[in-house]
Amino acid sequence: MRILFLGDVVGRPGRQAVTEELPRLRARWKLDCVVINAENAAGGFGITEAICDELLGAGADALTLGNHSFDQREALVFIERQDRLVRPANYPAGTPGRGATLVETAQGARVLVVSVMGRLFMDAMDDPFGAVERALSDCPLGAAADAIVVDMHAEATSEKQAMGVFCDGRASLVVGTHTHVPTGDHRIMPGGTAYMSDAGMCGDYDSVLGMAKDEPLRRFLQKTPGARLEVASGPGALSGIAVETDPRTGLATKVAPVRIGPHLDETKPVFWD
Amino acid sequence: MRILFLGDVVGRPGRQAVTEELPRLRARWKLDCVVINAENAAGGFGITEAICDELLGAGADALTLGNHSFDQREALVFIERQDRLVRPANYPAGTPGRGATLVETAQGARVLVVSVMGRLFMDAMDDPFGAVERALSDCPLGAAADAIVVDMHAEATSEKQAMGVFCDGRASLVVGTHTHVPTGDHRIMPGGTAYMSDAGMCGDYDSVLGMAKDEPLRRFLQKTPGARLEVASGPGALSGIAVETDPRTGLATKVAPVRIGPHLDETKPVFWD
Amino acid sequence: MRILFLGDVVGRPGRQAVTEELPRLRARWKLDCVVINAENAAGGFGITEAICDELLGAGADALTLGNHSFDQREALVFIERQDRLVRPANYPAGTPGRGATLVETAQGARVLVVSVMGRLFMDAMDDPFGAVERALSDCPLGAAADAIVVDMHAEATSEKQAMGVFCDGRASLVVGTHTHVPTGDHRIMPGGTAYMSDAGMCGDYDSVLGMAKDEPLRRFLQKTPGARLEVASGPGALSGIAVETDPRTGLATKVAPVRIGPHLDETKPVFWD
Amino acid sequence: MRILFLGDVVGRPGRQAVTEELPRLRARWKLDCVVINAENAAGGFGITEAICDELLGAGADALTLGNHSFDQREALVFIERQDRLVRPANYPAGTPGRGATLVETAQGARVLVVSVMGRLFMDAMDDPFGAVERALSDCPLGAAADAIVVDMHAEATSEKQAMGVFCDGRASLVVGTHTHVPTGDHRIMPGGTAYMSDAGMCGDYDSVLGMAKDEPLRRFLQKTPGARLEVASGPGALSGIAVETDPRTGLATKVAPVRIGPHLDETKPVFWD
Ligand SMILES: [Fe+2]
Ligand SMILES: [Fe+2]
Ligand SMILES: [Fe+2]
Ligand SMILES: [Fe+2]
Ligand SMILES: [Fe+2]
Ligand SMILES: [Fe+2]
Ligand SMILES: [Fe+2]
Ligand SMILES: [Fe+2]
Repeated sequence: MRILFLGDVVGRPGRQAVTEELPRLRARWKLDCVVINAENAAGGFGITEAICDELLGAGADALTLGNHSFDQREALVFIERQDRLVRPANYPAGTPGRGATLVETAQGARVLVVSVMGRLFMDAMDDPFGAVERALSDCPLGAAADAIVVDMHAEATSEKQAMGVFCDGRASLVVGTHTHVPTGDHRIMPGGTAYMSDAGMCGDYDSVLGMAKDEPLRRFLQKTPGARLEVASGPGALSGIAVETDPRTGLATKVAPVRIGPHLDETKPVFWD
Repeated sequence: MRILFLGDVVGRPGRQAVTEELPRLRARWKLDCVVINAENAAGGFGITEAICDELLGAGADALTLGNHSFDQREALVFIERQDRLVRPANYPAGTPGRGATLVETAQGARVLVVSVMGRLFMDAMDDPFGAVERALSDCPLGAAADAIVVDMHAEATSEKQAMGVFCDGRASLVVGTHTHVPTGDHRIMPGGTAYMSDAGMCGDYDSVLGMAKDEPLRRFLQKTPGARLEVASGPGALSGIAVETDPRTGLATKVAPVRIGPHLDETKPVFWD
Repeated sequence: MRILFLGDVVGRPGRQAVTEELPRLRARWKLDCVVINAENAAGGFGITEAICDELLGAGADALTLGNHSFDQREALVFIERQDRLVRPANYPAGTPGRGATLVETAQGARVLVVSVMGRLFMDAMDDPFGAVERALSDCPLGAAADAIVVDMHAEATSEKQAMGVFCDGRASLVVGTHTHVPTGDHRIMPGGTAYMSDAGMCGDYDSVLGMAKDEPLRRFLQKTPGARLEVASGPGALSGIAVETDPRTGLATKVAPVRIGPHLDETKPVFWD
Repeated sequence: MRILFLGDVVGRPGRQAVTEELPRLRARWKLDCVVINAENAAGGFGITEAICDELLGAGADALTLGNHSFDQREALVFIERQDRLVRPANYPAGTPGRGATLVETAQGARVLVVSVMGRLFMDAMDDPFGAVERALSDCPLGAAADAIVVDMHAEATSEKQAMGVFCDGRASLVVGTHTHVPTGDHRIMPGGTAYMSDAGMCGDYDSVLGMAKDEPLRRFLQKTPGARLEVASGPGALSGIAVETDPRTGLATKVAPVRIGPHLDETKPVFWD
């Protein structure tokens, strides 16, 4: 099975990169499943229903979120009826939405998409490892799921790598998000799970995390209130990871980074292109 | 000028990768200057004088440090007489050692090597931007220095990118360290400074941050005391960044990631190889 | 019912203050129940079985812990057989020991003692509010318990006050520990639960948190490795809170701080003395 | 000399407690100097010029600030012309305002008021110890200043106590603010400097940090966006510390907490009352 995961979509440049490129990539690479982290899709903060529909319409099978899940409050409502939108599984009980969803591909394969948030240097959430354990137990790879994608939305590389080790052999892919910087450590771990510490962002890389550079820099230099953070306005790039899985086991057989667009060294999966 | 920067050397696997590969790379790529972050070279924690000599002997022109600078206390002493060893410039006044050093290459070029530490999610240091400002003012690019390498040892990608923006046009290279994961965002910024959020580590990537996997994972699952952290014992890989500068301006003309060894997708600077 | 709670016992000065004063206070004030936080009783770090026995022998009915619970590893073992020793209830499942214990007083009253740890500025534990909710539901005040003492071991006053509000009307006392500084905000909340943000420490107050002053100060001034932290060697003071409850409801009717010994303004419950 | 320091004034209840009580206390206790932390005076967030004038008019000689200094942006402007308003001295160079001010009392005594912010669990400021060192060197006690008040606005008791130790013998008073909870550890340190870890707040104590209880509690239970934080609307209490100094040395001879109003056990300096 061919899976593409794209990292945090940041504002209009990120959305445009997705809507312009994804339909073509989906066809050219014969993708079975596309998952996109969309926590910054609406002006850098959260997601609206219109944007959710736009990204699903462009070819995503499921969208994941993170610490910005509910920055747009309408997400608290429409997430209940949108079962392709997944917020971190380790939000407190009672939080609207779901932490995992089982997507059926056009070929009839079942892909479990799990979202979870780290805790190191981040807000106090429930235990991410326990939350993932439950998701994997409820819908095991090779049994109830033909592939499993875990989006580990976290700051610290230690916690992300630990989640990779924790899931190795039990998921198709563990991929980090949140830092908005793609990492070059894509690999297949000993147990057969593909791993990359961060998928990077879909957005304008001539920026600080996708936002126009001046105000973030100013905040490091001065400690006085300044302007709002605005999405950088240059053209966006796509960033993520491509994984091919063995349909019998759901484990990864090939993995490659995907980086297409301005400011990034272009890289594509040679095994598909 | 041809500059190679290698990220955090972790324990024996990291040192072996350096000592085995660097002499060959130095010759093959006709390197003018090699800088290595060595904060984890001694069993994962700090640096000894013997290890310092070993890494310099293998072909490094200067070594940088980070939050683990003085984990081996002898570094508090020998750093005073070893002017090729640089600890973050924003340690409090009175800290042994120096925050920047001017290295002369075999061809007679002068390379300023600056080490600095971020503060977001890290210990309370002096202002890193002010420290870098002073280093760059004291020894400006194109005047007192023919090239300038800034090692921004930090956790948060926002702070690293802000440092990149801050130095753009005034340094040859701003490269992050500390996360032990190489990033795929190497690029030349609009002002001509090469940038990469993290150089990655030199060490065993079948690990958590270069340490054997079990104990770091256990620490996320349990909150009780356990075993010591031990360096992972598998073979190490090299990870870093290659930069070619314009000798007249000191700004970057070419940039490429360097990743050689187990568990990493090999990548080398095609413009040198 | 008459309840005395004493804050973090720090090393020998703290233990001596307890063993010398508590027997007398217990008799003089006709105490029904004494609870002591003992997370720093062993040289400032954790608790041994001998020290546990010493404090129980001096007149404590139960001991609570905190982030230093298991600094002495033997506590991982003997806590299983010592049902008067309580570690925070929101440690991960599988952690040795218990998060609450039901103590029977000499008069036959049942006192539920709950330990829980905050998460703001502290390690990533499970949700403290959920953990306390379960403890209170399992053993409700006025039904299964005649009195309930909740030790909220936390850094941030916001989280401690929120726990007070959360428990108001459902516990006899919510008292904070961990900062080693007694607070002057003891009161009975609208629902009838006594509250104090921090009980303070039992130890030498001519110190930094009970430790000899030089090294903690040095660590704020320099960022290099120094000496070990040593318990301050001066005489210790007792610090805590006295609560009288209505035996029919278990709610608080009177509350007063207790501070006896060097460096503190002495204060005792006038309603008992 | 007779000095009164009052902790963080929170919104209208805090301001009313000050304006109603302070004129009377100033006369009754024959106060020479009154310093108030006003970082939360404007609806819980920052200070306006009108409120600044109101508090000075009620009898304050100087006002200190903290992490909320500039929440009301007008403070960036009027602080330049209001030399009785002091923001933390360890803001970056170039920040509007001043970190210390020398106030002349009605009797002609000179009181140096210093504001500084801690860094542990707080924003990355410049070194607070260095900032205080400079303030004390520029205007030494017993020479250029007849009394010195240092407001250490910080979260961690360790950092506050270390600042106390650091200033002992060189200031009349080191008092903490920021936690909004008064501490019971007021004392005169061995060198003659009065110390209290936190002055507490002036505001409604039936609250979480002076804010209406529901929303702060909800934020610990849920991680979804909710309502704004609103100042609690009940009557406010005063909280702070009273210090008497030896006019020849400027060191403290007497110290007592001041707590007047609802929800607090009333306490006043018996040596003045
Ligand atoms: Fe994001
Ligand atoms: Fe995020
Ligand atoms: Fe490192
Ligand atoms: Fe580091
Ligand atoms: Fe403690
Ligand atoms: Fe503690
Ligand atoms: Fe405040
Ligand atoms: Fe504050």
